[in-house]
Amino acid sequence: MSNLPDALLTGYRNFMNGRYAAETEHYKSLAREGQSPETLVIACCDSRAAPETIFDAGPGELFVLRNVANLVPPYSPDGEFHSTSAALEFAVQALKVKNIVVMGHGRCGGIRAALDPNATPLSPGDFIGKWMSLVGPAAETVSGNDMMTKSERQTALERISIRYSIANLRTFPCVQILEQKGRLEIFGAWFDISAGELWVMDRTTGDFERTGTV
Amino acid sequence: MSNLPDALLTGYRNFMNGRYAAETEHYKSLAREGQSPETLVIACCDSRAAPETIFDAGPGELFVLRNVANLVPPYSPDGEFHSTSAALEFAVQALKVKNIVVMGHGRCGGIRAALDPNATPLSPGDFIGKWMSLVGPAAETVSGNDMMTKSERQTALERISIRYSIANLRTFPCVQILEQKGRLEIFGAWFDISAGELWVMDRTTGDFERTGTV
Amino acid sequence: MSNLPDALLTGYRNFMNGRYAAETEHYKSLAREGQSPETLVIACCDSRAAPETIFDAGPGELFVLRNVANLVPPYSPDGEFHSTSAALEFAVQALKVKNIVVMGHGRCGGIRAALDPNATPLSPGDFIGKWMSLVGPAAETVSGNDMMTKSERQTALERISIRYSIANLRTFPCVQILEQKGRLEIFGAWFDISAGELWVMDRTTGDFERTGTV
Amino acid sequence: MSNLPDALLTGYRNFMNGRYAAETEHYKSLAREGQSPETLVIACCDSRAAPETIFDAGPGELFVLRNVANLVPPYSPDGEFHSTSAALEFAVQALKVKNIVVMGHGRCGGIRAALDPNATPLSPGDFIGKWMSLVGPAAETVSGNDMMTKSERQTALERISIRYSIANLRTFPCVQILEQKGRLEIFGAWFDISAGELWVMDRTTGDFERTGTV
Repeated sequence: MSNLPDALLTGYRNFMNGRYAAETEHYKSLAREGQSPETLVIACCDSRAAPETIFDAGPGELFVLRNVANLVPPYSPDGEFHSTSAALEFAVQALKVKNIVVMGHGRCGGIRAALDPNATPLSPGDFIGKWMSLVGPAAETVSGNDMMTKSERQTALERISIRYSIANLRTFPCVQILEQKGRLEIFGAWFDISAGELWVMDRTTGDFERTGTV
Repeated sequence: MSNLPDALLTGYRNFMNGRYAAETEHYKSLAREGQSPETLVIACCDSRAAPETIFDAGPGELFVLRNVANLVPPYSPDGEFHSTSAALEFAVQALKVKNIVVMGHGRCGGIRAALDPNATPLSPGDFIGKWMSLVGPAAETVSGNDMMTKSERQTALERISIRYSIANLRTFPCVQILEQKGRLEIFGAWFDISAGELWVMDRTTGDFERTGTV
Repeated sequence: MSNLPDALLTGYRNFMNGRYAAETEHYKSLAREGQSPETLVIACCDSRAAPETIFDAGPGELFVLRNVANLVPPYSPDGEFHSTSAALEFAVQALKVKNIVVMGHGRCGGIRAALDPNATPLSPGDFIGKWMSLVGPAAETVSGNDMMTKSERQTALERISIRYSIANLRTFPCVQILEQKGRLEIFGAWFDISAGELWVMDRTTGDFERTGTV
Repeated sequence: MSNLPDALLTGYRNFMNGRYAAETEHYKSLAREGQSPETLVIACCDSRAAPETIFDAGPGELFVLRNVANLVPPYSPDGEFHSTSAALEFAVQALKVKNIVVMGHGRCGGIRAALDPNATPLSPGDFIGKWMSLVGPAAETVSGNDMMTKSERQTALERISIRYSIANLRTFPCVQILEQKGRLEIFGAWFDISAGELWVMDRTTGDFERTGTV
């Protein structure tokens, strides 16, 4: 009985003989000095949208929170367990990141579920149903719109949900204060794996524009 | 006013001219066919512990949930928002992953906070305090042990919390059933950035053993 | 009736025809000049942890005290027989060693006994029980911790007991004075036979770190 | 500040690249199966008299107790700390060794101290003085004998003390019983580094006879 899937063991050895071997001193220094990433990325769990890959980021660069559909719930200091709020608080208050990037992506399974009128719970607990209900009101504004294609509704909600998460970020007092003081900046981005397109949110208008690759 | 941090824009261009250019067909195919990762990795947000880097994983390989200290709360179908449970449900029920790997790491800031007797809330909401209270009882078993060094207490709790998360995984009926049927396997691992060590949990004893790199 | 076990007689002949034959002059000189080892090693009796083997040490190099679990009791000038204190005194005051190394090891039977809640005396005298009670208070800090695996508790106590012995070394006035004068240095190490790992104690933090083999 | 004397670090690397590399499987097996040495050797701490070297013994072969002058005190179940008795009890009762070898050696510093009429305490605790007083009455029988040379008195007491330790071994009930049942054998030996001579005690007469090397 192996204690780790073979693909991961093989990958780990590639890493050690490749990147780690080439950057050993950098890794040791990051261990010694601790992390001081400048950017928190809030991304989706999707296997095709790893922020480190898309932004070619090395160790120590990005503090990365990943949940289904890269959602930030509104500030709710009710003493319950809040995985996302905890990571946000840690990044902003302990690590003092300068940037927060909410990165959505195309073909998101969570967004698809939110738009599916026939979606049934995946299990009795219906955790995905409840989680995606965060964008339920937004989903309703497009889900019944049969003038848009299915794909257009999907992309529309993916982008709406990025702006929604950014609005929720600003309900956290610490985010609000630091942004007002100019010590924290908030960004939105949307990636589509097919052509490798990165669309960046205009921070004034909220529109997404494709970024060049040169 | 730039709409994305410069470092990320530069990184994205490296990605497009490098990996994406080299694997365009693979990316297009992943877009067309959808994702079908075999493995869910539950990892920490730490900037030095990206699973894709450590396991040298390409697009489509790993479905990755990242929260502070890679914790899985116990099954709690109470109708509240459960980010972690939602991702777990999606990976197991919708994507039908074959493996779940809980990957902790050395020098974890969340674990350090859980062990700090003088920790004060990072913000009035105290989201980190509440989140890390998941391993509070476990932390108490080592936090007062001044025969161990600070670093030894930290490593001990990092490993305890991996086993704790794995135990909680098994409180989810869908995980329990699929594991019993032999269609889902659960693994534990612990990475330390300094020497690049990967310690893999023995699934019989719960002990962690260092993995070779050759 | 043979007067020595056959294995030892055979081994002795190998020694004489091998190492002794090759280093005869060195041996003769050590006999003539007397010993002047620079290092006292305090090690365990375990058959898998001989300091001369692990440190590839030749004749004259290491003055070696071996007892169960490499323990040093606290300074106690009460006129009783103190085997360990006698060897320590001889090494420091008569041989004027420059270094003392307390070397523990993995899978130590004495430590295992100290952690076993069901341990019963091995004989009516219960010499092991009494001897290992030196680390009894330390053992209690981990023995009840069922969040740690049996193996983790064992390793933790093995390392605690090395630091405990080092602390006791410093209760001996001669050790204390010479160390303060910079004429004596104290080290800790932990060896595990399985992978041949040697972990060396950081003298500032008390942490153990694995030593490279290249 | 190095955390281990350089000579030991170098030696360790020689060991790993030499003996350990050549016998890795044997070492791993000893870790997995535990130790089961057939022989307990009670030897001196002297840097020139390591049993593993003299008997060319590999890992797992000899359980080795080393104190100054290889002394065994008489059985004394008084609830005090008895390092030597603890090791003896562990070897006989837990490991069930088949042989006990008391190995003295020439030019023993402890024996020399016991014979020195002008010996002064090495430190206020006088641990060596007390420890060597175990053979005090025996020492008196030769120390005043100026018909013997100094060297003859030394060798005489070295051999007397081996027989004394063997006699004390037999005051331990467990040793006595197992020896009577034929499950434990007791041997004496004396090594001199100069010519590499091994003298073995005749178990009937108590005489020491030189062993051939062929």
